Amino acid sequence: MLLAHGDPSIELVAVTTVVGNQTLEKVTRNALSVATVAGITGVPFAAGCARPLVREVEVAPDIHGDSGLDGPELPAPAFEVDGRHAVDLIIETVLAHEPGTITLVPTGGLTNIALAARKEPRIVPRVREVVLMGGGYHGGNWSATSEFNIIIDPEAAHIVFNEAWPVTMVGLDVTHQALATPDVVSRIRALDTSPARFVVELLEFFGATYLEAQGFEHPPVHDPVAVARVIDPSIVRTVPVPLDVELSGALTLGMTVADFRRPAPEGCTTSAAVGLDHGGFWDLVVRALERIGEPVR
Amino acid sequence: MLLAHGDPSIELVAVTTVVGNQTLEKVTRNALSVATVAGITGVPFAAGCARPLVREVEVAPDIHGDSGLDGPELPAPAFEVDGRHAVDLIIETVLAHEPGTITLVPTGGLTNIALAARKEPRIVPRVREVVLMGGGYHGGNWSATSEFNIIIDPEAAHIVFNEAWPVTMVGLDVTHQALATPDVVSRIRALDTSPARFVVELLEFFGATYLEAQGFEHPPVHDPVAVARVIDPSIVRTVPVPLDVELSGALTLGMTVADFRRPAPEGCTTSAAVGLDHGGFWDLVVRALERIGEPVR
Amino acid sequence: MLLAHGDPSIELVAVTTVVGNQTLEKVTRNALSVATVAGITGVPFAAGCARPLVREVEVAPDIHGDSGLDGPELPAPAFEVDGRHAVDLIIETVLAHEPGTITLVPTGGLTNIALAARKEPRIVPRVREVVLMGGGYHGGNWSATSEFNIIIDPEAAHIVFNEAWPVTMVGLDVTHQALATPDVVSRIRALDTSPARFVVELLEFFGATYLEAQGFEHPPVHDPVAVARVIDPSIVRTVPVPLDVELSGALTLGMTVADFRRPAPEGCTTSAAVGLDHGGFWDLVVRALERIGEPVR
Amino acid sequence: MLLAHGDPSIELVAVTTVVGNQTLEKVTRNALSVATVAGITGVPFAAGCARPLVREVEVAPDIHGDSGLDGPELPAPAFEVDGRHAVDLIIETVLAHEPGTITLVPTGGLTNIALAARKEPRIVPRVREVVLMGGGYHGGNWSATSEFNIIIDPEAAHIVFNEAWPVTMVGLDVTHQALATPDVVSRIRALDTSPARFVVELLEFFGATYLEAQGFEHPPVHDPVAVARVIDPSIVRTVPVPLDVELSGALTLGMTVADFRRPAPEGCTTSAAVGLDHGGFWDLVVRALERIGEPVR
Repeated sequence: MLLAHGDPSIELVAVTTVVGNQTLEKVTRNALSVATVAGITGVPFAAGCARPLVREVEVAPDIHGDSGLDGPELPAPAFEVDGRHAVDLIIETVLAHEPGTITLVPTGGLTNIALAARKEPRIVPRVREVVLMGGGYHGGNWSATSEFNIIIDPEAAHIVFNEAWPVTMVGLDVTHQALATPDVVSRIRALDTSPARFVVELLEFFGATYLEAQGFEHPPVHDPVAVARVIDPSIVRTVPVPLDVELSGALTLGMTVADFRRPAPEGCTTSAAVGLDHGGFWDLVVRALERIGEPVR
Repeated sequence: MLLAHGDPSIELVAVTTVVGNQTLEKVTRNALSVATVAGITGVPFAAGCARPLVREVEVAPDIHGDSGLDGPELPAPAFEVDGRHAVDLIIETVLAHEPGTITLVPTGGLTNIALAARKEPRIVPRVREVVLMGGGYHGGNWSATSEFNIIIDPEAAHIVFNEAWPVTMVGLDVTHQALATPDVVSRIRALDTSPARFVVELLEFFGATYLEAQGFEHPPVHDPVAVARVIDPSIVRTVPVPLDVELSGALTLGMTVADFRRPAPEGCTTSAAVGLDHGGFWDLVVRALERIGEPVR
Repeated sequence: MLLAHGDPSIELVAVTTVVGNQTLEKVTRNALSVATVAGITGVPFAAGCARPLVREVEVAPDIHGDSGLDGPELPAPAFEVDGRHAVDLIIETVLAHEPGTITLVPTGGLTNIALAARKEPRIVPRVREVVLMGGGYHGGNWSATSEFNIIIDPEAAHIVFNEAWPVTMVGLDVTHQALATPDVVSRIRALDTSPARFVVELLEFFGATYLEAQGFEHPPVHDPVAVARVIDPSIVRTVPVPLDVELSGALTLGMTVADFRRPAPEGCTTSAAVGLDHGGFWDLVVRALERIGEPVR
Repeated sequence: MLLAHGDPSIELVAVTTVVGNQTLEKVTRNALSVATVAGITGVPFAAGCARPLVREVEVAPDIHGDSGLDGPELPAPAFEVDGRHAVDLIIETVLAHEPGTITLVPTGGLTNIALAARKEPRIVPRVREVVLMGGGYHGGNWSATSEFNIIIDPEAAHIVFNEAWPVTMVGLDVTHQALATPDVVSRIRALDTSPARFVVELLEFFGATYLEAQGFEHPPVHDPVAVARVIDPSIVRTVPVPLDVELSGALTLGMTVADFRRPAPEGCTTSAAVGLDHGGFWDLVVRALERIGEPVR
């Protein structure tokens, strides 16, 4: 959210929340708090689905803490959520803008977006692209084969991956390269603004949980990589490849299955991120934080 | 719909449509036409989902014809659909009425109701009961184990059966007893009204398709049995039994699995219809048609 | 085994054991002990597979006790197992007899028979029929839909049901009618032989476990019903019906799926038992025990 | 087979065949013919299972031709198959040798080995290691995720991977690096013996089918890589990693699922090949062919 707000090439027009890292209530409050930290104003924030389509709720306190955004101190939100449901905000936003202008960038479970596509199929051809953080073609983090954002609502992911809109999967294959190394953290700390301090505290918390839970030396960041892809496609290299979501495997539930055996067929609507320009990515992040500066409360 | 309209103990407050026997467009037009035949006015009709949550669209022209309601001549609808989406009409209707007063009676795929429960979970404890036509604990009609209304959107059915509201399944186990025998058809024909003639033509069409497609001597009627259960529980005997929907079987996808091994546990929210009072049922139908009389157009 | 031994119309040519009610070691010893009780001699007994093909071992001590045959006192076996593996004994027996003369009557898991069919496919067209105790088309005893003998090795059952030999499933649908009511137990007790006393003690033990574990007033007997079908088909009515075994359902693993929607197609190799002559069945059992008399040790 | 025969560090004690690239009859004849080409004598060859455990037979004529070994002219076999079934030959061979001395090197479907483990569990702790060609942790050749040798009998593979013996999977991850480049083919051709000519003709045939069917510039060889691992572990680098076989995925049936999230736990019995010394591998192959020389017929 900070990257999308801080980068001049993106106009952030709406933010929606969904159960995932924590309960809907917690993640919604967290979204408002982060927006407050960054001085985001005039953008509707709407709460969405409190549980996945078919599966039971599963949250990730061992990675994100009990609050869903442990680490930094979170300010009280400076504004309230929009009265609309996230599903309706997505639909209305897409229908209110010119076709081909709205990019959806889900960085959590895909429940809201799946419901929006089912409730109002006319949004599908109007969406420019879905660039999502989630999945991975060579291994998962929540099971051997499955990534958290997909497995918490695999049916929703199946809907999103199989709709006619262009889908770009920014998965663990690249986000696990987006490591917040000490020099990166130093550059951010040097900005010495409250949003930058917020990010540093967050990265320090991730540093501890990722080491503990998944054995990472430096913590990866996930969501900004999807946003970076939207800002500058040269930073996240993608290839077209058929992608689908496994719904019934005993070992592979929620796996994002990529078929790399042959070049993607004509008309393939799905792509996977396969490479990251690590330096370019962090430059983008640091510049965005710089631009945000010290928001006036 | 005719039974719900004609019976004095039911107040029909909203009708929604969903893809199923035919495309959403066709079934929605059919619903308006039938309402026109029956003289239903002042009730909002809303179109819902055009496709199931996860599976591809499957329709049933061999049973219901190319129109989705072949047989009788269908009048041009006398009114238009409500502007709201079926999902929102369901939510708004439930929230606008006292808790425990609205009964949902789905007689098609469960996509709309599943989406309503996911979009607005507050409706769940307010709904009095979901009395659905669908499923069957001892065999199907679309596969060896699965009934059409469930298998066209098994994930939606899974959602509905597993929500905390009371669910009564009126399945093939009883609807296949609700046969429109010649004497029944005679009684309806004798009413000599245009709605009665409409019903007779429909039953004659079903008589042919059910003989051809499923080997029935007399055609069963399905949906009115669920409505009859709401009107007079003594006509459709039910027992509490754990029910769930199979989502991953190679042979059993969409099966409504009932566990009859033991008496249902305390707090079991699901029931299955197990017996039909054939005479009482058709009396109810004939009386309702009688009460509808000859609607003024 | 007692029924097959005691009835004059059956020649018992081999007995094999397989993991199931208890471990292979226990069930093999039990088989020898029962043969000793009944005075069975000159028939090879061979031990087979100690675990199912794919699944983990699951035994049923709550029904059959820790020994796998709790209840009566078991005599020390009067003879030893054949040195051959059960799979080879089955193959050799079938190949050594005229085609169409050997009936396989599995009353446990189907691991041995599945392996025999895979190891030596030439037995398949030579077997007269497989009449198995297991499964059920309207509900299970180990899950809502699955019977113990099938679910302990569903892959083996899938192999057996899908081979080209005739398969008759004698499932819970009829064995749960074969209740050992008090008058039946009295008739057996009145025989006053040691095999009869053995059977009475077994039925009394089952009476307790079936009441406790599954809520039965009188205990059903399962295996003799399959044998009775072989002796006198009029006692166990069957109908041809396509049967298959579900291998991947979340709720229905191991279900024997019957397709009753239409008359069985030409060439259907599977049949299901659908009705039991309760009196005739128990007459058969009592007469067989009578004929066994008091074996000389 | 040629590599195992030609390399001095391996004693080839038995060869068994199984349905796979072609029918059992064809692959068995091919095995005898290849042995004849190479002058292999005194080693029992036994035919095994003619079909997979649960799935239907699937062969690969587009890769291996109608004979199952298209390309070179195949000589008439100089000897006959052993009378024993492959399953029994495996069991007897393992039991007849000292524990820890026999390595199984399956390079086709795993039906025989799975049956051997189920029929005679005592072989499991006696086998030194199962080094198999099959599977792959990062993609398949028969589906997006599944390799041919595994998917033709996934249940058998599941049995083999889950037994207590050490399993080393030499999968597509490394065999697709074992490319028969033109210089390799030249080196083999230069040997100018009939076995070498045989290999060259085979590689030329694969060159055409792999280009056509899977888009390879130079054809990979698969089976010799597993043998090379047995001869010289330094040529095929492996890492311990939990491996299992997916039996129920809609998209992932037969996938060999590796869990690389963490270092393998203590006692992990499975390993995966992750790297190939391309030069060392082909040196081994060329030297083995050299050693075979020109067999006297």
